[in-house]
Amino acid sequence: MWGIIATWRMAKEGIDKSVPILEKGGTAADAVEEAIKYVEDFPFYKSVGYGGLPNEEMEVELDAAFMDGASLSIGAVAAIKDFANPISIARSLSKYTVNNMLVGAGAEKYARKQGFERKNMLTDRAKIHYRNRVKETQEMDISPYSGHDTVGMVSVDSSGHLVAGTSTSGLFMKKAGRVGDSPIIGSGLYADSSIGAASATGLGEDLMKGVVSYEVVRLMGTGMSPQEACEKVTFDLDKKLIERRGIAGDISIVAINTDGDWGAAANIDTFSFSVATATQKNTVYTTKRVGNKMVHEEASQEWLEDYLTERMKPLEEK
Amino acid sequence: MWGIIATWRMAKEGIDKSVPILEKGGTAADAVEEAIKYVEDFPFYKSVGYGGLPNEEMEVELDAAFMDGASLSIGAVAAIKDFANPISIARSLSKYTVNNMLVGAGAEKYARKQGFERKNMLTDRAKIHYRNRVKETQEMDISPYSGHDTVGMVSVDSSGHLVAGTSTSGLFMKKAGRVGDSPIIGSGLYADSSIGAASATGLGEDLMKGVVSYEVVRLMGTGMSPQEACEKVTFDLDKKLIERRGIAGDISIVAINTDGDWGAAANIDTFSFSVATATQKNTVYTTKRVGNKMVHEEASQEWLEDYLTERMKPLEEK
Repeated sequence: MWGIIATWRMAKEGIDKSVPILEKGGTAADAVEEAIKYVEDFPFYKSVGYGGLPNEEMEVELDAAFMDGASLSIGAVAAIKDFANPISIARSLSKYTVNNMLVGAGAEKYARKQGFERKNMLTDRAKIHYRNRVKETQEMDISPYSGHDTVGMVSVDSSGHLVAGTSTSGLFMKKAGRVGDSPIIGSGLYADSSIGAASATGLGEDLMKGVVSYEVVRLMGTGMSPQEACEKVTFDLDKKLIERRGIAGDISIVAINTDGDWGAAANIDTFSFSVATATQKNTVYTTKRVGNKMVHEEASQEWLEDYLTERMKPLEEK
Repeated sequence: MWGIIATWRMAKEGIDKSVPILEKGGTAADAVEEAIKYVEDFPFYKSVGYGGLPNEEMEVELDAAFMDGASLSIGAVAAIKDFANPISIARSLSKYTVNNMLVGAGAEKYARKQGFERKNMLTDRAKIHYRNRVKETQEMDISPYSGHDTVGMVSVDSSGHLVAGTSTSGLFMKKAGRVGDSPIIGSGLYADSSIGAASATGLGEDLMKGVVSYEVVRLMGTGMSPQEACEKVTFDLDKKLIERRGIAGDISIVAINTDGDWGAAANIDTFSFSVATATQKNTVYTTKRVGNKMVHEEASQEWLEDYLTERMKPLEEK
């Protein structure tokens, strides 16, 4: 059995690239890296890789992480600028014994020395988003945009090897140097080949308060299905944040176990995810909470196309 | 009941500063910040704050984090240079809704704007350590020094409020931009005022694989004592790392619960910790593993003095 699941509809075409790898007995590590690279390279997804929205300094700072569930090896970069594929840099860092997480200028120095592709990640379209946002908030404090389309991906390959990966440009209009959950082991992602793997997207500052990806994997280790574990962690954290803080940020989680069973949950009604397994073709679902359960619905061809059209439509400067 | 416990003997004098705060009904947040600031300011502790050892570029890059167990608010900085008290910057970040973790140049910009004290954190003594290390390894690859004296501190105040804080200069000879567990919520620290708080020190890259501080707090929430939870998490992760990787890095954890009960565990024989509560004067313990239990022993006056003498003795350039 093999399987791969990722946050958001935007991961669909990336997963299309990975399915042949997994079908041929390739590794989950290669599948996750290739799929995330595709999303990073696609210019119209505005919170991952090329075309990602900038911080308040109009600089695109990117975060990514990789975890190997067999060795528990980890690699991560945060607040890195001007490199095409942060996920590949993160994966390469997971091969060392120490110095696995590098940030800022140090991460860029490492990536340069290793020969990773440099690229100006700020697109004209992202600049228009930035300028429009500045105009909208001229008389107010600029606060970060709450949207979040981090790609978080987990996969099990036919050898039973589990891998998790993430990549994001983070909150739009974030402060320079801001890091969310995506490169944080335990919060943005976690993988253990004896159990499963999970990855999150949402308001990173709140996801870190719940260490959500670790907790989903831990619960799967007690016998919960991926679906039950995602629901429990999402709803419990949502409740706790409201009790303690009066408000909960967006929480969305995907998970897979060693059998290729998968799950997804969110405390918002706009979450979608993409999944393929040995027994299920690459499918996009939208999902909504009903009571203490999520109800997943296969996205129609029309919905899939509208999603892309919406993201690719011409953007007017205000 | 109030209590405070921290990694290493080096925290003793910092805790001396915090005991009067806690005795007078002050907050755990103030107690943790004041104690850690003292350790950061003391020039002879070579892996925290002023006098901390540099990275391979001979730059002192500092990491710190703060977590409030009531609101679950978090603040963290990583790879920040030239500021006297990273713990205070981390605490200040915990007051915002977003942008709670800042790294590198972005973190420095924030700290400058907020008026935090700038300071050249590289001492002449640290430069001698650096040059000696370079000479020792002239013909070999320079690998990071495995020593780690991160200060990790947790406290409960008389209102039952739990707080955790950390501060470190990280691995000696680390790569520029390297971040370990200390500023990572869940790994280096975690606090939940309904349960307790925990903080870790050791090889950050391995501590992150176990998300150890979150797991200790979670286990305390199931009814385990802080001592039992620290032992279980330390020994389980040590075993798992050896099974999966053939080797386990240093793991040391301290914890406290809402009743002021405390615990500590390590997979090394050189760990020490400092603890004070409403019913126990500030005491330093050394600790060793015997079977699946730790045996703590109160450090003698001679041991305490030797520790300081050793750290403060003249350093010869090789």
